Amino acid sequence: MTRQDGRKNDELRTVSITPSFLTHPAGSVLIDVGGTRVICAVSLEQGVPSWMRAQNVSGGWVTCEYGLLPASTHQRCQREAAKGKQSGRTMEIQRLIGRSFRSVIDMEKLGANTLHIDCDVIDANGGTRCASITGTSVALFLALRKMVKEGILPEIPMKENVAAISVGMLNGECILDLCYEEDSAAEVDMNIVMTESGKFVEIQGTAEEQPFSDEELAKMLSYAKKGLAEIFEMQRKVLAE
Amino acid sequence: MTRQDGRKNDELRTVSITPSFLTHPAGSVLIDVGGTRVICAVSLEQGVPSWMRAQNVSGGWVTCEYGLLPASTHQRCQREAAKGKQSGRTMEIQRLIGRSFRSVIDMEKLGANTLHIDCDVIDANGGTRCASITGTSVALFLALRKMVKEGILPEIPMKENVAAISVGMLNGECILDLCYEEDSAAEVDMNIVMTESGKFVEIQGTAEEQPFSDEELAKMLSYAKKGLAEIFEMQRKVLAE
Amino acid sequence: MTRQDGRKNDELRTVSITPSFLTHPAGSVLIDVGGTRVICAVSLEQGVPSWMRAQNVSGGWVTCEYGLLPASTHQRCQREAAKGKQSGRTMEIQRLIGRSFRSVIDMEKLGANTLHIDCDVIDANGGTRCASITGTSVALFLALRKMVKEGILPEIPMKENVAAISVGMLNGECILDLCYEEDSAAEVDMNIVMTESGKFVEIQGTAEEQPFSDEELAKMLSYAKKGLAEIFEMQRKVLAE
Amino acid sequence: MTRQDGRKNDELRTVSITPSFLTHPAGSVLIDVGGTRVICAVSLEQGVPSWMRAQNVSGGWVTCEYGLLPASTHQRCQREAAKGKQSGRTMEIQRLIGRSFRSVIDMEKLGANTLHIDCDVIDANGGTRCASITGTSVALFLALRKMVKEGILPEIPMKENVAAISVGMLNGECILDLCYEEDSAAEVDMNIVMTESGKFVEIQGTAEEQPFSDEELAKMLSYAKKGLAEIFEMQRKVLAE
Amino acid sequence: MTRQDGRKNDELRTVSITPSFLTHPAGSVLIDVGGTRVICAVSLEQGVPSWMRAQNVSGGWVTCEYGLLPASTHQRCQREAAKGKQSGRTMEIQRLIGRSFRSVIDMEKLGANTLHIDCDVIDANGGTRCASITGTSVALFLALRKMVKEGILPEIPMKENVAAISVGMLNGECILDLCYEEDSAAEVDMNIVMTESGKFVEIQGTAEEQPFSDEELAKMLSYAKKGLAEIFEMQRKVLAE
Amino acid sequence: MTRQDGRKNDELRTVSITPSFLTHPAGSVLIDVGGTRVICAVSLEQGVPSWMRAQNVSGGWVTCEYGLLPASTHQRCQREAAKGKQSGRTMEIQRLIGRSFRSVIDMEKLGANTLHIDCDVIDANGGTRCASITGTSVALFLALRKMVKEGILPEIPMKENVAAISVGMLNGECILDLCYEEDSAAEVDMNIVMTESGKFVEIQGTAEEQPFSDEELAKMLSYAKKGLAEIFEMQRKVLAE
Repeated sequence: MTRQDGRKNDELRTVSITPSFLTHPAGSVLIDVGGTRVICAVSLEQGVPSWMRAQNVSGGWVTCEYGLLPASTHQRCQREAAKGKQSGRTMEIQRLIGRSFRSVIDMEKLGANTLHIDCDVIDANGGTRCASITGTSVALFLALRKMVKEGILPEIPMKENVAAISVGMLNGECILDLCYEEDSAAEVDMNIVMTESGKFVEIQGTAEEQPFSDEELAKMLSYAKKGLAEIFEMQRKVLAE
Repeated sequence: MTRQDGRKNDELRTVSITPSFLTHPAGSVLIDVGGTRVICAVSLEQGVPSWMRAQNVSGGWVTCEYGLLPASTHQRCQREAAKGKQSGRTMEIQRLIGRSFRSVIDMEKLGANTLHIDCDVIDANGGTRCASITGTSVALFLALRKMVKEGILPEIPMKENVAAISVGMLNGECILDLCYEEDSAAEVDMNIVMTESGKFVEIQGTAEEQPFSDEELAKMLSYAKKGLAEIFEMQRKVLAE
Repeated sequence: MTRQDGRKNDELRTVSITPSFLTHPAGSVLIDVGGTRVICAVSLEQGVPSWMRAQNVSGGWVTCEYGLLPASTHQRCQREAAKGKQSGRTMEIQRLIGRSFRSVIDMEKLGANTLHIDCDVIDANGGTRCASITGTSVALFLALRKMVKEGILPEIPMKENVAAISVGMLNGECILDLCYEEDSAAEVDMNIVMTESGKFVEIQGTAEEQPFSDEELAKMLSYAKKGLAEIFEMQRKVLAE
Repeated sequence: MTRQDGRKNDELRTVSITPSFLTHPAGSVLIDVGGTRVICAVSLEQGVPSWMRAQNVSGGWVTCEYGLLPASTHQRCQREAAKGKQSGRTMEIQRLIGRSFRSVIDMEKLGANTLHIDCDVIDANGGTRCASITGTSVALFLALRKMVKEGILPEIPMKENVAAISVGMLNGECILDLCYEEDSAAEVDMNIVMTESGKFVEIQGTAEEQPFSDEELAKMLSYAKKGLAEIFEMQRKVLAE
Repeated sequence: MTRQDGRKNDELRTVSITPSFLTHPAGSVLIDVGGTRVICAVSLEQGVPSWMRAQNVSGGWVTCEYGLLPASTHQRCQREAAKGKQSGRTMEIQRLIGRSFRSVIDMEKLGANTLHIDCDVIDANGGTRCASITGTSVALFLALRKMVKEGILPEIPMKENVAAISVGMLNGECILDLCYEEDSAAEVDMNIVMTESGKFVEIQGTAEEQPFSDEELAKMLSYAKKGLAEIFEMQRKVLAE
Repeated sequence: MTRQDGRKNDELRTVSITPSFLTHPAGSVLIDVGGTRVICAVSLEQGVPSWMRAQNVSGGWVTCEYGLLPASTHQRCQREAAKGKQSGRTMEIQRLIGRSFRSVIDMEKLGANTLHIDCDVIDANGGTRCASITGTSVALFLALRKMVKEGILPEIPMKENVAAISVGMLNGECILDLCYEEDSAAEVDMNIVMTESGKFVEIQGTAEEQPFSDEELAKMLSYAKKGLAEIFEMQRKVLAE
């Protein structure tokens, strides 16, 4: 099988990350993964959600909201603000992103503060949730670094970078980093979120069409690790600038 | 570590399935998995959703709705109908259940019909989404069998049973089929949906507290398979009656 | 006229009440009235609604929420949580149930607590609001008894049992305890809520098709009293166990 | 007991009905019952609701919407359009009004048309639902008469007038036509809807504080009949003008 | 061009203002401008909105809600409370009315109180937002006068009257105070809100069909001023009574 | 008075327009006006809204939706999709933008198609509605040009460019193109939308604090025209590339 953009099965699309893309939030990036472009922003709010206060949970909180601009998709999609509710897909994705970062933030060090992550997709070409996670990790480090510099936080409460990539089975072959057309046609679609130190944060594998075997799972995981190693390298480069 | 109910780490809780629990729907069960009780019902509606007609997708559709009765939880939870919206958790779960069954239903054989799955939890003690899937597989077979008998469908469009179980890491140990207290404290929570023939339908692993390694993943998958083998046996028994 | 299930015009359907049907709430029952099955649960919450605090109303509060499981009806009905709002019928019924019990609870003895009643219909075959009231009376006594036993309340603030039954006019004849088909065809539909001591709590009579006379009203009330006497007997038996 | 406005226990408040109060709807009135003022309007729409078409129900339909202007109440109440939902009380009332008129309209004669009743309370002083029904009966006759005159309908499909009045028990005494303060303090509150020919359309009696006896019920019904006889007289007078 | 009701291009429709039209609110009027009838009510609530407290803004607040009765329009319009949301048009109008009065109220003199303006259109014949503003100015003065009399406010915090009128371009001619049919057909529609002392509070000019020139703007402004001079005269007369 | 960024009172902020900023929509730009950055996108949909079909209106339709990214504002603002409704401000702005372009599009030439305008603000620094209009005019021309080239439309149905700018009164002085801090403090805030040929499309002037005189109005209009002349020049340059 030849992939439609000529990539090898285990090859990533081009990734670029523009730091500090927005004016107001503490940290932000524009990330581009093969034409999927997401604005990731991190804002600090003093205080924690009411359920934490009610349950006397100490420390801080990290939460995420995700959205597609109506013109970001191949066919214009409906604006969720106009419809009056977020879709199940949107909720599922923003819950995934929030959880991913809660696993690498030390909530006690964060103190009684809330970090709001906003991921807004301006161009969608497959893998928007993965690009959101990869971009947010950088935006979050930028935000926390700035807060430490400004004396808002005593130290950076984030343990390490997090990144995500999709893998899948298409026509019986394992492929890395699916573009929109591949994603629409794949038998299996899997998103892997890992830490820089090589551990899993989330594994979400879905057999849309065809259940998958142990061997296929193993191959998808190995492709994902290869791709994520390259992505962590890029994150480090951007953060070192 | 001793588990609070004295189970071994790879031991299931008691499962029982009461077929045809409701009067009106085509198929239904009450499933009890260690005190988690779910009413699973399957109803057939003629016709398919409007997006399928708009996109000229042939065949049928399978969809799911999930809910917690307010009094099903340790502390009474708010009624979603009264709040006016379903939570992100509810949407995530019902999307998971719907996808799980779409992977084993032959949509062409189903014809232009919609199967509605309703999973309503009456007692929640951990693992409600897994119990919902395991119970629904039986309710779905009962419903489809009845439709074939009544001449509504020419043959059963379901390829094989599906079942689900949770595994997780708690205090550094791998455990099978988490009860509510274990689930609340676990470092990693994973739900595995498989087919009777031993393939994966969904893998959803989440490091709520602590990212997990390849070895931990392997152990969780092996526990899940052991547990699911026993559950498929029970499903077959109920369906053979 | 012969009734479709062979009952006499003033004859009740079979009633059974399973106490303590759920695990978590303070009191609960499953009630079955001729195939109409409702789970009635009572939960105590400390504190009272904000409008009571704002108006400085002393004592406690009793409130009810009612719902139909989607698969409980002859044709699957839409899930209100998914639609995003409760129907007028649902609101009307849950307001009726709440009022019925406020008339027999001594709010001062209840103290600054709220009793939440949840009535969830799992099978609907006519008379769901009446079955909900009859079942809730038992669940409420069970809950209050337990709270007194556990020292949460000093004494039981409920004065007496409450029960409800439907009566109606069908083809010019007065009938007791209408099943679904009778209810759909009746000229007049009336729900009577009474106390064990023989007083009226609510009378709701509706001429869906044909206004009714004084004589018809008198006959309906007399049938209702006869039926309720039998139902109070059953409630006492269950509570005596 | 002396009533606060000096009325005898079985005495109505002053009633006045201004026909054709609005410009656009087919029929309308402004009704004033002791300071409770309601604008009742009736509009004809061609066609019937989708559920009637779906179920192949022949004939027409009558439906009602009810609202309180925010400034109509003693303390300004919240605008339901701004809150984004109608209260349970509003829904209960508009369902009552709709049902009341469906019992006197011959749906076959109405043809495949929908009559929309709008009752908007501009001043609330107790008894708004009863005033709405009494006023609507006149507005409906005016509307139907006009439609017959204009050839839109072949004959008037309304059989007779309908009117409503409240009765209640206050400090152990039976009283007719409760004003706001009486309504707030009553032990029992009952709304009676009757036809001009003396039959019941709706009886809704509620023991807010104290269950009531057969004798009290009988007395309340007799007061209501006396009051309604006077009201039907007024309706006839207005319609004869 | 002859206007359909025979008016000259710079001629107002008949205006009448009935003060104290409602029973409960502090101030109210029924205003009739050429068949457009609006009930304007002003209620005082102690305290200010939460956003003012959060931002430590001193003084009071003035806010408005606007609505059309369903039967007020040529074709019955949908009830916003039933739809569950206010239209963009409604929001735009109520924001305009609120702003108009905030510019003439001294918020410090008002103290930590909120003035609620409710404008409910009972008959719509063009110019509902202008009639609402003109009527509200009188209702507001009546309310504030009463509050000063009752010692609730030390002095009247309203600097002067405000009134509004529409002007437009129709078939190339400038016309004053458009009725419904003129409004529907106009090339340009402009609403002018002024103070009694001759200054602009709001100018909202919209070229629905055809952009307009400086000369047309000048002519529309001069017509508006002429009309408003007459309207201020009427307001003064009503307030002097 | 010296302006905070050193500009003269009648001086614009720096404007830049990046054409074809997005991948999928027919036309798009990123416009930057002094740090206010908006993504403007235009998508064509076949067919017209249902109300046009119902009323048999021929030709096409132009509609707009507007939104602020949560991180676009000085303090993060709430996501409207998460709140479940659009604010009155959002509705007012998107209605303004839609109207502005309907006045320069020949609906008959557009045919039975709908043009969707999406304006999403990624950085807000005052003047977001004006920047949205100025940017959309370019995006719209790009979209229509492309559609003509692709044979989707026979000719460009847009008559000329439209642009918008804010003017206001601050500390008694007239200023052009208000930045965020100026806008927050201004006594008068006015938005002027004009066509390239020098006619008014919309005038919206609001005295937030202080009513304004004829002279002030005249000065504001003259500043606006000066600014808009420069902006039309920029639009032409971008479209000529």
